[in-house]
Amino acid sequence: MSLIVQKFGGSSVANADRVRNVAGIITDTYKAGNDVVVVVSAQGDTTDDLIEKSKEITLKPSKREMDMLLSAGEQISIALLAMAIKEMGYPVISLLGWQAGFITSSDYGAERIKTINTARLQAELSKGSIVIVAGFQGINKYDDVTTLGRGGSDTSAVALAAALHADKCQIFSDVDGVYTADPRKVPNAIKLEEITYDEMLELATLGAQVLNNRSVEMAKKYNVELEVLSSLTRQPGTIVKEVVTMEKMLVRGVTKDVNVARISITEVPDVPGIAFKIFSKLAAKNINVDIILQSVGREGTKDIAFTVSKDNADLAIEVLKTSIGEINPDNVALDTTVAKISVVGAGMETHPGAAAKMFEALYERNINIQMISTSEIKISVLIDAEHADEAVLAIHAKFMPVE
Amino acid sequence: MSLIVQKFGGSSVANADRVRNVAGIITDTYKAGNDVVVVVSAQGDTTDDLIEKSKEITLKPSKREMDMLLSAGEQISIALLAMAIKEMGYPVISLLGWQAGFITSSDYGAERIKTINTARLQAELSKGSIVIVAGFQGINKYDDVTTLGRGGSDTSAVALAAALHADKCQIFSDVDGVYTADPRKVPNAIKLEEITYDEMLELATLGAQVLNNRSVEMAKKYNVELEVLSSLTRQPGTIVKEVVTMEKMLVRGVTKDVNVARISITEVPDVPGIAFKIFSKLAAKNINVDIILQSVGREGTKDIAFTVSKDNADLAIEVLKTSIGEINPDNVALDTTVAKISVVGAGMETHPGAAAKMFEALYERNINIQMISTSEIKISVLIDAEHADEAVLAIHAKFMPVE
Repeated sequence: MSLIVQKFGGSSVANADRVRNVAGIITDTYKAGNDVVVVVSAQGDTTDDLIEKSKEITLKPSKREMDMLLSAGEQISIALLAMAIKEMGYPVISLLGWQAGFITSSDYGAERIKTINTARLQAELSKGSIVIVAGFQGINKYDDVTTLGRGGSDTSAVALAAALHADKCQIFSDVDGVYTADPRKVPNAIKLEEITYDEMLELATLGAQVLNNRSVEMAKKYNVELEVLSSLTRQPGTIVKEVVTMEKMLVRGVTKDVNVARISITEVPDVPGIAFKIFSKLAAKNINVDIILQSVGREGTKDIAFTVSKDNADLAIEVLKTSIGEINPDNVALDTTVAKISVVGAGMETHPGAAAKMFEALYERNINIQMISTSEIKISVLIDAEHADEAVLAIHAKFMPVE
Repeated sequence: MSLIVQKFGGSSVANADRVRNVAGIITDTYKAGNDVVVVVSAQGDTTDDLIEKSKEITLKPSKREMDMLLSAGEQISIALLAMAIKEMGYPVISLLGWQAGFITSSDYGAERIKTINTARLQAELSKGSIVIVAGFQGINKYDDVTTLGRGGSDTSAVALAAALHADKCQIFSDVDGVYTADPRKVPNAIKLEEITYDEMLELATLGAQVLNNRSVEMAKKYNVELEVLSSLTRQPGTIVKEVVTMEKMLVRGVTKDVNVARISITEVPDVPGIAFKIFSKLAAKNINVDIILQSVGREGTKDIAFTVSKDNADLAIEVLKTSIGEINPDNVALDTTVAKISVVGAGMETHPGAAAKMFEALYERNINIQMISTSEIKISVLIDAEHADEAVLAIHAKFMPVE
């Protein structure tokens, strides 16, 4: 007998029919002889609707009260899902975050899970019940309700799987696995059977939007085997684990990220410590910098360019223009019409030709590369946003030619 | 400095403007130097919407899961109200039922408050915060979320006022006080300045729908001074307390209740214990019986008639037809086209003429009286439902002639 944690996203439980469908998946797993713990998100647009309600009241809501408000969404979905399972004749109980023992830090709005007290969960499982847990929420040391921030339900599920030593954590959504590229844009995209945590992490960070990256980090840390699959089909999905069976594929995926802005500073005095100054000031404002490029400028100056996410761009520009004396505000420029295209694959470590292959694909389409960044398992390039989809198609075709 | 508990019903917080309006009432009370604890219901139709969602899943929901589902409604309204008060610049915190220390019995769906642990509430008050509490909900000994049943927010407020020894408990809704009759139907209806608990209890039970009767019983028991008032006007409402200043009025109110059905059983054998048998079987099914009439029938039989609420009528008929051998099922009849008209007033105890006056009003309109029931402070008659509004007008005019 195995213990399986299943997580269903908001679209999987958006209405009564979907709730019943999910209840069918859960009870099939239970009937097969498994213990089942389920983590569920708020139905469909509930969270957005609640945020809208708060905006009608205030544009600067207290974070504590925002957590109080938003956590009601999952409370509704766990109750409905438990009712559906009960209606099918199976023993079931729903638990709120605090009832399931989720203790979080006290930074309202973006808490981290500190510990999970699984006593009640274990007790309910040993009674033979299917346990439905509200994702995305917990309680802090003041007994206040807290939320884990967007995507937090994935994290709840993985943390629960780790705490319960579950055999598998299945993440259900409306996509049926991890593809080598966005299948809506790249018709030849291939669904992967397996992928490593590190590859998934690069893909998640790069905008593949299949799994929240905090949850992948946690799965890697606690060695929780993940499966990404669809609640709308009954097909196997993609397994995410530490080591995957060797496949011929050099690259696991090609991704596009348009939530990126390029900031360039020209004519920065070429004195020691200037880069440190710039990037520590940005870090102090919680601005993550991605690709960095430094080049020699004219007359003892240098040019520095880097990318940030679009929502951080204005703040970054402000920091650069106002708090660093060495920078002439007129020399700071922002470009938001860029896209980051990446190829990811653990196999690239031992295949130095991957970068060349990628650049060749871009060259053939006459697409200019603005910046390049590489790691052991990925290569990213910054290009003009208008060529992004074309670039993904070309690179994908180069690495995964149609057989 | 006084401690005031204020309760706002669902229509008082139905949208953002109403929430802001309520926030204004609360902060005015706070600014006047009072400690303020607020109990609030779910917004507008939220509870009905949630019930509708559950019906799409199952018609027989688990009571525990129903409590889980419905308690989300108040969670949303307390968070929004706290945000609105914070936006106005006042210290405020929202608390769920369990955070406010409401411990209930474990009969999911219609729990009673067992105790209120006010430690956290007191701590928040002593910090100078306005405290917003989710009405209608608590937690039981299993740490499960429970609800107090419909109207439970009134009960939450009164219980809180009792536990905190509050100076006053104000119940806000969309009516501005207790009237001598429904002002939509009786243009000359008068708003009462004061009314006793017992009179209010009769009025509440009789369908005046101003206050939930459990909350009035509790207010009487713990001697909590209530005020019924409107959140839409800033006018004084009606005070409910133990003893009221003598007023000339003989009668406090005339009410109509159409949620009533008349059941009659003819030719019941006239043997000892038959009435006991009938009414104990009904009591065992939790069916409350109101007016009872027994009359001699023909040939050693008797006829028994009584009233129940409409929603209990079918169950009562089934009990009578199937579980009491002495009753011939063909002799059981149901009439749902009846209405109960009542006059209530503590003054009637010392004015024996009240009943005669009521009957005279009905006689003048040629309205037939089917059954009569009296207590120290009320007289009720059962009449044909189609004459109900006319009867209320006539009786009201008789007792409170236009000056």
